[in-house]
Amino acid sequence: MMLEDLPTPCLVLDRGILRRNLRGMAANLRRLNVPLRPHMKTAKSIDVARLAIEGQPGGITVSTLAEAAYFAGHGITDILYAVGITPQKLDQVAKLNAAGAQVILITDDPETASAIAACSHLARTLIEIDSGEERGGVSPDSALLLELAVRLGRNLAGVMTHAGHSYEGRGVHEMARIAEVERTTVTRAAERLRAAGFRADTVSAGSSPTVRHAEHFDGVTELRAGVYMFGDLFQAEIETHGLDAIAVTVLASVIGRRPGRILIDAGGLALSKDRSTQAAPIDYGFGLALDIAGRPVYGKATVRRAYQEHGVIEFDSGYPIDLPIGGKLRIAPNHTCMTAAAHDRYFVVDGNQQVAAVWQRVNGW
Amino acid sequence: MMLEDLPTPCLVLDRGILRRNLRGMAANLRRLNVPLRPHMKTAKSIDVARLAIEGQPGGITVSTLAEAAYFAGHGITDILYAVGITPQKLDQVAKLNAAGAQVILITDDPETASAIAACSHLARTLIEIDSGEERGGVSPDSALLLELAVRLGRNLAGVMTHAGHSYEGRGVHEMARIAEVERTTVTRAAERLRAAGFRADTVSAGSSPTVRHAEHFDGVTELRAGVYMFGDLFQAEIETHGLDAIAVTVLASVIGRRPGRILIDAGGLALSKDRSTQAAPIDYGFGLALDIAGRPVYGKATVRRAYQEHGVIEFDSGYPIDLPIGGKLRIAPNHTCMTAAAHDRYFVVDGNQQVAAVWQRVNGW
Repeated sequence: MMLEDLPTPCLVLDRGILRRNLRGMAANLRRLNVPLRPHMKTAKSIDVARLAIEGQPGGITVSTLAEAAYFAGHGITDILYAVGITPQKLDQVAKLNAAGAQVILITDDPETASAIAACSHLARTLIEIDSGEERGGVSPDSALLLELAVRLGRNLAGVMTHAGHSYEGRGVHEMARIAEVERTTVTRAAERLRAAGFRADTVSAGSSPTVRHAEHFDGVTELRAGVYMFGDLFQAEIETHGLDAIAVTVLASVIGRRPGRILIDAGGLALSKDRSTQAAPIDYGFGLALDIAGRPVYGKATVRRAYQEHGVIEFDSGYPIDLPIGGKLRIAPNHTCMTAAAHDRYFVVDGNQQVAAVWQRVNGW
Repeated sequence: MMLEDLPTPCLVLDRGILRRNLRGMAANLRRLNVPLRPHMKTAKSIDVARLAIEGQPGGITVSTLAEAAYFAGHGITDILYAVGITPQKLDQVAKLNAAGAQVILITDDPETASAIAACSHLARTLIEIDSGEERGGVSPDSALLLELAVRLGRNLAGVMTHAGHSYEGRGVHEMARIAEVERTTVTRAAERLRAAGFRADTVSAGSSPTVRHAEHFDGVTELRAGVYMFGDLFQAEIETHGLDAIAVTVLASVIGRRPGRILIDAGGLALSKDRSTQAAPIDYGFGLALDIAGRPVYGKATVRRAYQEHGVIEFDSGYPIDLPIGGKLRIAPNHTCMTAAAHDRYFVVDGNQQVAAVWQRVNGW
């Protein structure tokens, strides 16, 4: 089957670009000398996970318990659930672990830590540390850090942080600086715990930009990153990778034509309403138009308007629009995590237009 | 089962509010004396469709062929697919119609019209008219209108338009004015066709705001609207309905607490990244926080930041945040069509917190 034959809109994954992104990350990890626990929240696919853990210890990170159940069911059992747990969700975790998974939790809440300690099943838990994002996590210098360690007891497995605010950083030097804050913050928390007599075997950190630009991650025992596998326009804008590293695109058909623009059958649902690049140097609207081969032949033509099932692509003058109704093109996404989540499968190609495989995704919760 | 017991995030539908919205629309339709072909792109549920067609002719509107197949499979066969068709999709339509459906198409393209006419199966088709949105459709005064009629031949069933730009309108009088332009544009197209000897039995128009505010829709044979069933913050802002008409909310759990704000387990995926209200009088961020009973007890507390699986709700001072980790609340969405599409089912309540039913949705393409 060829891309030309697929019903639209649908999601295309270029395995050649994915493999190149994975090799780039592997080289980076060798430089840093820290192993990776790849974050599967972007890909949500066992086929991608198998490629991403090659040459690594084999553990993964997930963002939902649905992902945890799915990956455990496919044989990947060492799973960090990197969203703060609630006491109500511990039963679900206990069931997964009783069935053979080893789901690791995170918390920054004393009462939740006590609830974890009261579980009949051991639930290894990392204390979440805030390294500047101000989303979740405790300060490495807080009294709360030690209180959490006391409450977790034998469940304490270490500390973790996520420098998500690296997404607001710009330029290689600023990313390196944020990475160093991420590293020093989480290692300081680990050292404080050890000095107080606790174990902190796991010191987990990372985001695609900071892993890419860090000078070193000494003291960190594992790194986490996810979007690096697929890339997107926003990551290209903040210099995590080049525009040619975007492995996932939305295949769309032309459903209308007017002077200077076309209407496609990929709108807000197929592309997502994410506008990450709004504040970036180049505002790509709801995505960049490429031809069916994935080439940037339309200059800066982007999806400027996104209705539920309609997208409007505006072309600069000088780009003849040679696409008939039903003609196909591909849209590179602003934010791959959001765009991919609208689709239940990938149509996999190897640098050409032939569909080599269909890979399923696990969406929802 | 109670809302308190549900895994989060998930989608809650208050059937009492839905029924009230349907009654309001029915009263409006009696006033206008035009029947409704409800648009199921928002609800995507056979259970909701059955309620929405009560007292109406029984036809529906859909936004994807996946919806068409789903509803036809559940016995609703009179289906308008209100997105411009491509020649490549005609096989799929022919299969649905051969299996008993009567899928009606729309087009504004001469070559597609010829492709429709060349089909072995009759595919009733409406010519899409542009009433000011500048998305799809031809001008009612264009030569193209008559060319399309000629090319469609016996497949020609009438004309349709959608005043989607009503979403940019503000206030009752402006909405009434846009509705009148929508009406006169599409009826003028029908009259031109008839004057030229063509049939234009169907004259289809509508959007939730214009159907709500039109003075009359004389000459229009059917109206289309969808979001009125569930409502949302954006529709409340443009005065399509009141804040108490929002029937769909996202149930979320608290996963973090800080002074003046909480972290919930509903982020960009569960809420969508839609920011419709950004340009509205009140900017609701990524949604308005309500308590588990759906009451606006937190003032103007909204989701200000949305990560993939994390949302940050900021509270005005004076609203004590009495929610522990694991405590539940509900988020009213900016744009229900986008938010609901992230979920595969509704947990249905009747004005209380008891789950009375679980209704499935048909997502994807």
